[in-house]
Amino acid sequence: KMTGVVIDGKETAAGIRKEVKRQVQALEEKYGAEAGTPGLATVLVGSRTDSATYVRMKHKACAEVGIKSIQRQLPEDITQEALLEVVRALNQDPLVHGILVQLPLPSHINEEAILAEVALEKDVDGFHPLNIGKLAMKGRQPLFVPCTPLGIMELLRRHNISLAGKHAVVLGRSNIVGMPVAMLLVKANATVTVCHSQTTDLPGIVKQADVLVAAVGRAEMVKADWIKPGAVVIDVGINSKDDPSSKKGYRLVGDVAYDECASVASMITPVPGGTGPMTIAMLLQNCATAASRTLGAST
Amino acid sequence: KMTGVVIDGKETAAGIRKEVKRQVQALEEKYGAEAGTPGLATVLVGSRTDSATYVRMKHKACAEVGIKSIQRQLPEDITQEALLEVVRALNQDPLVHGILVQLPLPSHINEEAILAEVALEKDVDGFHPLNIGKLAMKGRQPLFVPCTPLGIMELLRRHNISLAGKHAVVLGRSNIVGMPVAMLLVKANATVTVCHSQTTDLPGIVKQADVLVAAVGRAEMVKADWIKPGAVVIDVGINSKDDPSSKKGYRLVGDVAYDECASVASMITPVPGGTGPMTIAMLLQNCATAASRTLGAST
Ligand SMILES: NC(=O)C1=CN([C@@H]2O[C@H](COP(=O)(O)OP(=O)(O)OC[C@H]3O[C@@H](n4cnc5c(N)ncnc54)[C@H](OP(=O)(O)O)[C@@H]3O)[C@@H](O)[C@H]2O)C=CC1
Ligand SMILES: NC(=O)C1=CN([C@@H]2O[C@H](COP(=O)(O)OP(=O)(O)OC[C@H]3O[C@@H](n4cnc5c(N)ncnc54)[C@H](OP(=O)(O)O)[C@@H]3O)[C@@H](O)[C@H]2O)C=CC1
Repeated sequence: KMTGVVIDGKETAAGIRKEVKRQVQALEEKYGAEAGTPGLATVLVGSRTDSATYVRMKHKACAEVGIKSIQRQLPEDITQEALLEVVRALNQDPLVHGILVQLPLPSHINEEAILAEVALEKDVDGFHPLNIGKLAMKGRQPLFVPCTPLGIMELLRRHNISLAGKHAVVLGRSNIVGMPVAMLLVKANATVTVCHSQTTDLPGIVKQADVLVAAVGRAEMVKADWIKPGAVVIDVGINSKDDPSSKKGYRLVGDVAYDECASVASMITPVPGGTGPMTIAMLLQNCATAASRTLGAST
Repeated sequence: KMTGVVIDGKETAAGIRKEVKRQVQALEEKYGAEAGTPGLATVLVGSRTDSATYVRMKHKACAEVGIKSIQRQLPEDITQEALLEVVRALNQDPLVHGILVQLPLPSHINEEAILAEVALEKDVDGFHPLNIGKLAMKGRQPLFVPCTPLGIMELLRRHNISLAGKHAVVLGRSNIVGMPVAMLLVKANATVTVCHSQTTDLPGIVKQADVLVAAVGRAEMVKADWIKPGAVVIDVGINSKDDPSSKKGYRLVGDVAYDECASVASMITPVPGGTGPMTIAMLLQNCATAASRTLGAST
């Protein structure tokens, strides 16, 4: 019985944040403290507490590496046109290098139209359909790759996990995780299987995975006997599970039953401390890249 | 030993052409014989005989259903800027409803920039990265879907082949066939595996396919013992194979060893006469759709 090596996303992300911090300092030295500081604008509509928490975490992470954050907090009942105007103004602002529209938006807003309005060169979330199209296409490169999938690929790369010719199975096909990570895995020359809620025989398919990416949002769904011995397991899920022994009454778990799967996998990401910290690190990296491109082009 | 039902793409395509012909007549009745006739512009650069043949076939098919075709035949050494100007002029022309840039373009031309210049609402090939992005995204619909993948889906639909929960295996990941058909199959709720030249154990993976789409360009690569008994086999390949018994000295074969696989599959497309005719029928359908949208919007 083996024990899988824990892929420490927190540590890897900390390393990337240091790199970004140095990149930010270099930009400020080159372009001056005002113009040279990367700026991330966040657009938060309404008062969902989860969304507010995510935005706050992103601002905190920005501050730590020296990225300035600009917050646009907007009322729940803002009109489509007014929200478009907010995005357009940020597109024009030379001190804003990245724009992040926190999802979900209220149901009266056309999310597709808002995301398509974000200037391509400021699309640090990588959700613009033109960036997604280039992500899908052979021989094309998007300006930005969505942060969670990018973080997964970076985690694999920094842990020397080879992908070419490997069978990768992705559970989930959402626009923000499953679909883009599947496309990146194909580009990395893995053979890729995409599963979702209508997949039959999930255990049988997961069993073939040399690399498994689970992004379904179902607490501890993937069991040990689904895992091919020696597989690499990337758990993207963040689910809360009742836990009377914890002060809050719950704890966070992934989509994978960690304890039992860790003894079958060769490498595995924990939840928390796996893909989560990487997502934020990639956002910071995308912001620094955006600033560095814009500033470089303007000189 | 069963014998697979032959999926007759030629017959299905003939039915679709009739539908398109009626649609064209209806447009002409409604908008008049000049303005109401759908127009397809083809852009052909250089003198590749294969490309010239494809363009000629498309014009012929257009003529049969009453779509007007406008040809732009351009010299091999045309500049990028001049080619962009040709596309821009076609974008502006109200009698042109669809624009098809025949690929491949000469190596000095930036194909990506040319395809991205085609007006979205005239992108009847569906190759604009914005259309591909929307094809990839859950909850989004592209204006046009690339013709070969669309023809495959239509062939499956018109033969009542259910996809939800089925395992579909796609051989090939090209921008014009493999990748978009894989995305369409995911949207149709199949579990989808994408294979390519770096896939290991291709026979083992193909063996799991309830639906196999082969688009690799390797003559008769897929053998009978790769096929799951009862599978549906869609052969996209068009390869020429030496055949001394034929007048031309060769004949066209698919990526699937047809004779042996037909006795394992429940349904199979022949080559020629399978996906090929469907591709052209979908181009005609996309042109009629383009004209109908544009004319409808302008009234
Ligand atoms: N680590 C990080 O930084 C991030 C973590 N997450 C977490 O990742 C998880 C997934 O997020 P997201 O992609 O946004 O979620 P979505 O709800 O948008 O997508 C979930 C996907 O899983 C599929 N699915 C649901 N149930 C099952 C099942 N029983 N079997 C197989 N497939 C199933 C769904 O299928 P169908 O399409 O058929 O509905 C869907 O494709 C969540 O736990 C989320 O909190 C999300 C973003 C970032
Ligand atoms: N019926 C129709 O209307 C049409 C038919 N076709 C035909 O379909 C075929 C494919 O066309 P197209 O997609 O443009 O071709 P491409 O050459 O662009 O792509 C071929 C794909 O097959 C993969 N591949 C090549 N060899 C192997 C192998 N031995 N094992 C597994 N995968 C392999 C390649 O992998 P990698 O990515 O690793 O290189 C690539 O992804 C051709 O025969 C073409 O003539 C094309 C368009 C329309």
